[in-house]
Amino acid sequence: MDLDLIRRLSQPADTKVVLCVLDGLGGLQGPRGRTELEEANTRNLDRLAEGGCLGRTLPVGYGITPGSGPGHIALFGYDPLVYEIGRGALEGTGIGFELGPNDIAARGNLCDINAEGLVTDRRAGRLSTEVTTGVCEQLRQITLPGVEVFVEPVQDQRFVLVLRGEGLSDALTETDPQREGVSPIVATATSPEGERTAALVREWVEKARAMLGGRERGNGVLLRGWSGRPNMPPFPELWKLRAAAVTVYPMYRGVAKLCGMDSIEGAHTLDEQIALMKQHWDDYDFFFLHYKYTDTAGEDGDFRRKQEAISAFDDAVPALLALKPNVLVVTGDHSTPASMAAHSFHPVPLLLWGDLVRSDHVHQFSETNCAHGELGTFPAKEVMPLAFAHAGRLAKYGA
Amino acid sequence: MDLDLIRRLSQPADTKVVLCVLDGLGGLQGPRGRTELEEANTRNLDRLAEGGCLGRTLPVGYGITPGSGPGHIALFGYDPLVYEIGRGALEGTGIGFELGPNDIAARGNLCDINAEGLVTDRRAGRLSTEVTTGVCEQLRQITLPGVEVFVEPVQDQRFVLVLRGEGLSDALTETDPQREGVSPIVATATSPEGERTAALVREWVEKARAMLGGRERGNGVLLRGWSGRPNMPPFPELWKLRAAAVTVYPMYRGVAKLCGMDSIEGAHTLDEQIALMKQHWDDYDFFFLHYKYTDTAGEDGDFRRKQEAISAFDDAVPALLALKPNVLVVTGDHSTPASMAAHSFHPVPLLLWGDLVRSDHVHQFSETNCAHGELGTFPAKEVMPLAFAHAGRLAKYGA
Repeated sequence: MDLDLIRRLSQPADTKVVLCVLDGLGGLQGPRGRTELEEANTRNLDRLAEGGCLGRTLPVGYGITPGSGPGHIALFGYDPLVYEIGRGALEGTGIGFELGPNDIAARGNLCDINAEGLVTDRRAGRLSTEVTTGVCEQLRQITLPGVEVFVEPVQDQRFVLVLRGEGLSDALTETDPQREGVSPIVATATSPEGERTAALVREWVEKARAMLGGRERGNGVLLRGWSGRPNMPPFPELWKLRAAAVTVYPMYRGVAKLCGMDSIEGAHTLDEQIALMKQHWDDYDFFFLHYKYTDTAGEDGDFRRKQEAISAFDDAVPALLALKPNVLVVTGDHSTPASMAAHSFHPVPLLLWGDLVRSDHVHQFSETNCAHGELGTFPAKEVMPLAFAHAGRLAKYGA
Repeated sequence: MDLDLIRRLSQPADTKVVLCVLDGLGGLQGPRGRTELEEANTRNLDRLAEGGCLGRTLPVGYGITPGSGPGHIALFGYDPLVYEIGRGALEGTGIGFELGPNDIAARGNLCDINAEGLVTDRRAGRLSTEVTTGVCEQLRQITLPGVEVFVEPVQDQRFVLVLRGEGLSDALTETDPQREGVSPIVATATSPEGERTAALVREWVEKARAMLGGRERGNGVLLRGWSGRPNMPPFPELWKLRAAAVTVYPMYRGVAKLCGMDSIEGAHTLDEQIALMKQHWDDYDFFFLHYKYTDTAGEDGDFRRKQEAISAFDDAVPALLALKPNVLVVTGDHSTPASMAAHSFHPVPLLLWGDLVRSDHVHQFSETNCAHGELGTFPAKEVMPLAFAHAGRLAKYGA
């Protein structure tokens, strides 16, 4: 649904909505012809499916494999083809760096550069996170005129560079040549508004080279994925409610924050997440709960472990229901079939449970049942309108 | 999917995709309550359906009956409401005339005009193709300043007129009044850029009248469907691959060529088409195979013959599979129910077979099973994104 229409029709109500995202939930048939979800022990989810209704989402479009960014912002109700979270912004978000409206971020690599100025290893032999952390501390001493500079280690040789100041732009080239045996690319504006930023980046890269020149490994830097904070209308304003994210991993907390949600922090397990929700139950109308382990198992190609991760989530469902949400949605941000060991383009199973549900009389939460479910196959950006409609939070359109 | 997004996400891969278009495949229930497809012997397609997945396409939209042009360009991934192949262009394409970028084409009729200058028969008593061919040879002697002129017979009284030159435009009126007892319309520009073309057409029509004035039948010409070559981004460039059409009828070869595909020519039967595909298997990544006889039987209102045409295609499936495609799609460009003896608006059955398919566990390729299939009912322009996603040829969107 169009965001202007949401803004127009959304209305406060005394109801609570919980969105559970089982990362990479959708799967493909395994050795026994059934999917991870179909093999998992889902007695609690199956009971919800009996009283609720099923469907499937297309996160971005037919045949499109979503990254985590688009997968989540679609579930939050934003068109992922309109609101794009750039790679620099996402990398910053992933380590908990809060991008401001005047920030421009890039993903950085420490790399090896030889005497001729050619890149010999784009990843500097995958330097350890410890070494990179030390190098980032050094790089923070570099100053640039008129802007603040942040350099944050990520993992291995990766770091994030953020420039903060008025009038910065992401309209400049990447400096990573994407292959070895050539020079790094000199940052150049791709349109006039990028010229000042490109000049600042050139200066920073030169100073970094001078500072790191004596190192054996990691004597150079490569920058890519320039991006600012995406400009999404805040979720709480669109829906006229208080929204909180309860996550374990910083990436998902970050995406929720970019959408204007609060973050309730401190949980390291699903039980702790639910305990935090209980503690803050009266403070919010909407909770986004993120569960990562379905995706990590899928990405590892481990069918059995993904199945078990789903079963483990199922075990927590009674505690979720004990909070007495009015509407509970269980879905994924994309599919991650163990047989592919990667995100995939397949539609994502969805279960919507609540008072106003039109039942589809099925007894199991599965890909096949979802394909035939009451809600049909629909764009993921319609999940929020559907959930909030079931919670009495969308007014009538027209007289 | 948006073509810019395709251009951005498409990636080369070592996989082969085959699109089989059974023209007019979709049907309606016959005397025994089952459709042509359901009555046909489809043991091979049924086996593909078991391992593959089913769905239905909407070529243009709900309730819209597609012509062959829109039906095919939608299957090739282009929005048929954005990219229109004009009637003049399609008529030229259908007789194998290759429209160039500076060409403007119209469908022509030889007609009868009386002493008062009124049209007495818009089709000149349906003159024979032989007579029309002779008249076209005469008409070719007409020259116009600054442009090349082509006059090609089609069938009966129909011909194609093509003007070739810089700065021509299709912004002019048709000359066919669409009824009898009135004068032909004088070609007039409908916007300033059409003025030169309209003047050239008026000159050509006058010269044709003078040349044909002494004939008893077919002493005048009527022109309609002005159109240039449609400006579609080339399929091979969009998808970063080599694409070939293997067709028997020039119309479908022509549409594929307008989309930038190569044409492998010389086949007169389905077996010969498959033999040509085998011969050129290493030269291409994508093959479009067109099968006409389902449609001709449907258009003739011959249920049994359409059923047999489907069975005959089924017999060729093992030879197609022997080529070892990674993804095989079997569908139609529209429905042509024998009971209607015409193209129809009904959704079109689709079967997608390949490695990454999420199985829908059905055992027969039929309209009913397709309506409940894993792929749902979706716009035909999403067939290529789905097929290429299953072939590993679409990269992830976003990080």
